[in-house]
Amino acid sequence: MNGSPTLALDLYQLTMAAGYFHAGRSKDIATCEMFIRRLPKTRRYLLAMGIERVLDYLLELRFSSEQIAALSKLPALRSAMTPDFCDYLSKFRFTGEVFAVEEGTVVFDNEPLVRVRAPIIEAQLIETYLLSVINHSTMIGSKASRIVRAAEGKRLIEFGTRRTHPDAAIDSARIACAVGFAGTSNVEAGVRFDLPVLGTAAHMWTMAHATEEEAFKNYFTVFPDSSTLLIDTYDTVRGAERAARVAGNKLRGVRIDSGDLGKVSVEVRKVLDQQGCKDAAVIVSGDLDEHSIAALVKSGAPIDSFGVGTELVTSGDAPRLSGVYKLVELERGAERMPVAKFSEGKSTLPSAHQVLRIYDEENRIARDIILLEREDSPTLAAGQRAVALLQCAISAGERKRPRRSLEEVRAHVALEHQTLPTELRSNEPFGPGETPFAVEVSSATARLVEELRLARAKEPT
Amino acid sequence: MNGSPTLALDLYQLTMAAGYFHAGRSKDIATCEMFIRRLPKTRRYLLAMGIERVLDYLLELRFSSEQIAALSKLPALRSAMTPDFCDYLSKFRFTGEVFAVEEGTVVFDNEPLVRVRAPIIEAQLIETYLLSVINHSTMIGSKASRIVRAAEGKRLIEFGTRRTHPDAAIDSARIACAVGFAGTSNVEAGVRFDLPVLGTAAHMWTMAHATEEEAFKNYFTVFPDSSTLLIDTYDTVRGAERAARVAGNKLRGVRIDSGDLGKVSVEVRKVLDQQGCKDAAVIVSGDLDEHSIAALVKSGAPIDSFGVGTELVTSGDAPRLSGVYKLVELERGAERMPVAKFSEGKSTLPSAHQVLRIYDEENRIARDIILLEREDSPTLAAGQRAVALLQCAISAGERKRPRRSLEEVRAHVALEHQTLPTELRSNEPFGPGETPFAVEVSSATARLVEELRLARAKEPT
Repeated sequence: MNGSPTLALDLYQLTMAAGYFHAGRSKDIATCEMFIRRLPKTRRYLLAMGIERVLDYLLELRFSSEQIAALSKLPALRSAMTPDFCDYLSKFRFTGEVFAVEEGTVVFDNEPLVRVRAPIIEAQLIETYLLSVINHSTMIGSKASRIVRAAEGKRLIEFGTRRTHPDAAIDSARIACAVGFAGTSNVEAGVRFDLPVLGTAAHMWTMAHATEEEAFKNYFTVFPDSSTLLIDTYDTVRGAERAARVAGNKLRGVRIDSGDLGKVSVEVRKVLDQQGCKDAAVIVSGDLDEHSIAALVKSGAPIDSFGVGTELVTSGDAPRLSGVYKLVELERGAERMPVAKFSEGKSTLPSAHQVLRIYDEENRIARDIILLEREDSPTLAAGQRAVALLQCAISAGERKRPRRSLEEVRAHVALEHQTLPTELRSNEPFGPGETPFAVEVSSATARLVEELRLARAKEPT
Repeated sequence: MNGSPTLALDLYQLTMAAGYFHAGRSKDIATCEMFIRRLPKTRRYLLAMGIERVLDYLLELRFSSEQIAALSKLPALRSAMTPDFCDYLSKFRFTGEVFAVEEGTVVFDNEPLVRVRAPIIEAQLIETYLLSVINHSTMIGSKASRIVRAAEGKRLIEFGTRRTHPDAAIDSARIACAVGFAGTSNVEAGVRFDLPVLGTAAHMWTMAHATEEEAFKNYFTVFPDSSTLLIDTYDTVRGAERAARVAGNKLRGVRIDSGDLGKVSVEVRKVLDQQGCKDAAVIVSGDLDEHSIAALVKSGAPIDSFGVGTELVTSGDAPRLSGVYKLVELERGAERMPVAKFSEGKSTLPSAHQVLRIYDEENRIARDIILLEREDSPTLAAGQRAVALLQCAISAGERKRPRRSLEEVRAHVALEHQTLPTELRSNEPFGPGETPFAVEVSSATARLVEELRLARAKEPT
């Protein structure tokens, strides 16, 4: 988000915050966990993204006097915006503790990605923005992960700006580069996040000239060292011949944006090689996704780079994630109470949790177990190793681990991709004979669920 | 977009702009048209949105000295950022002419929504942002249109912030309200665009209390005049009983977020009526879309308001639009040349166009015809009336029609909905026996396509 994200929340976060305040509950400590309720059918795993942005948000969250004045004018809040609550908001700081997975970690359904323990108003107010950022970023990051693996090391360029909201586009470009794309066509994203800004000529340039040859000549004159010409405006093979003739061995590349990319790229490569443009790259684009890219890579088509837009920025086959943020424990004075909800199809796991990931001898993910925070680890088989995914990121309102750079996230993602077992590497939905990866819930957690359910049933009607 | 949108574009807009500049083509006049190439299979029509925002952008577009400095540092632009081109950018203003459909107009594939005639660099630079805004806004507006029609006048509240990018969420809330939603839970959207900000209590509030009854009491104490209680945390019917007991006839409403909403709402209404809460509204939420809302409305379920989130802000059944922006005519000195591209599956219609909409006697849409700009209208049948959809919005860089307010757009959308013929009112995809609405292309336009195709074939290889 570009401006202040303070008011980018659902009204009820503020009504509840005011409610806790006026009910004398400000000192209660809440523990909340964020998790993805269900994986989309077209995803075998997700790549958690947006964590670093949420940590920044928590540390920077303030209410300006203008924002407090704006809230005081909302009819739904009027009765709650007393001078003492306004004063509370004006001094607001996030003072809590956050445990979170590393940016770019492989994750599954139901396991917490973020655990927040803070005074209840703080834990409440941050819900909407936290979910918005992690749901969107993880959706894009997960799609990018599939595309990066499908490209098998070939160069990927993010081209999606025109197909999504302008601000979502800028963040999607950043996420794509963090996951493994080589660059983006989005100039603002490049300038803001120091990403390689890449591009080629476009159809309009060619159409604005009387002939394709003249268009290529004029482009080459202005960009003698970086001419990547778009050759499919009229006839792609002829376009390749013209590009080679105009730029000779200084031609950096050609882009093909239509037709049978596998077949045409072979013809184009042949033309380029015959005309001495051996160093010119072949770039293809046009509604590419992980499936079409994988097919092109497997076919051996002589393609050097893929431009990917629409399918990345919209995550078309899984355009939303069901991430939620739920209260799991409440501390009032010395009392510590695990809590859960039992709404139909929307129940939650009580108490604070850790996620233990167990790797096999080949460093592949073998099991994920949701444990109670203070529960002992299970016994491991020979050769296995266990890692706690939730690590302290903020304590007493201060960062406890340095902000990860884009390069660090990129390196982490590359390692994460290597930990995927064979059954999670396919980009196809699970077939009839296959079972999705099942995150385990420790028996201590399951027992606690049953205890709470029994206690709740005894509540007077 | 929150910050300056100037650099929210694809790199190639800038390389081409520099190219036109250095090739001495700055004075050429380009006409470009924006249209949606294909309707998604799940859409019978679209509702054009984002037009007003694009007009604002055109009139405000400037390059700051910081932005020009940032561009000069990009490797891909370095050879082009000469002092004279930097000077050109520093003085940049949009000086052209724009014809556009009204915000909130029903539109179909292939017909221009926006036509821009401007010096070629201006016409080129604006492509990315224009497409990003109109593609996203029209996608959300079209989904909102379906939901509004399905609700048949029942109250709709936008709840989607957590399921999309934070900035996209704010714009989606605005668009939903422009199309007919009563309000949004997004506080920033409400404050920024003066929309009603609405909400209810939430699960966390209830879970933060030892009993549901205590939770309801505390909420009611702080919000005695506006308590809408969420009653499904543990047992919905018991929750309704408790809410009625706590708030009595001051209860504003209850929300149900899980279970069989049709069935449960009947039981809840009965409890509320029996306990004297006749004025309390029943609000339902939980992954609602136009289909589930239509089913609930048709069932006669006693529901007053629908909270709609995920499905609206992600347009889950059609998560992208294929809007494109294409050069259709070029003027160099006294010469005026229609242009087109013939790429496989991506060809365009040459020359500047108007869209004529013909209404039948009952004021329903009968035909849409894409005409050459200066072509005569076809003869109308008795009782028909024709309207030119593209109207002048900007001339010589100045607004020629006032900015439409949210209320004006809302009124226009309501009228547009009435013009939908029966076959376009269904929210189901077209069945085997049905044919999608076909926009006609005038024979003069079709002849021009063939002339250009023949001329292009004669270009030397």
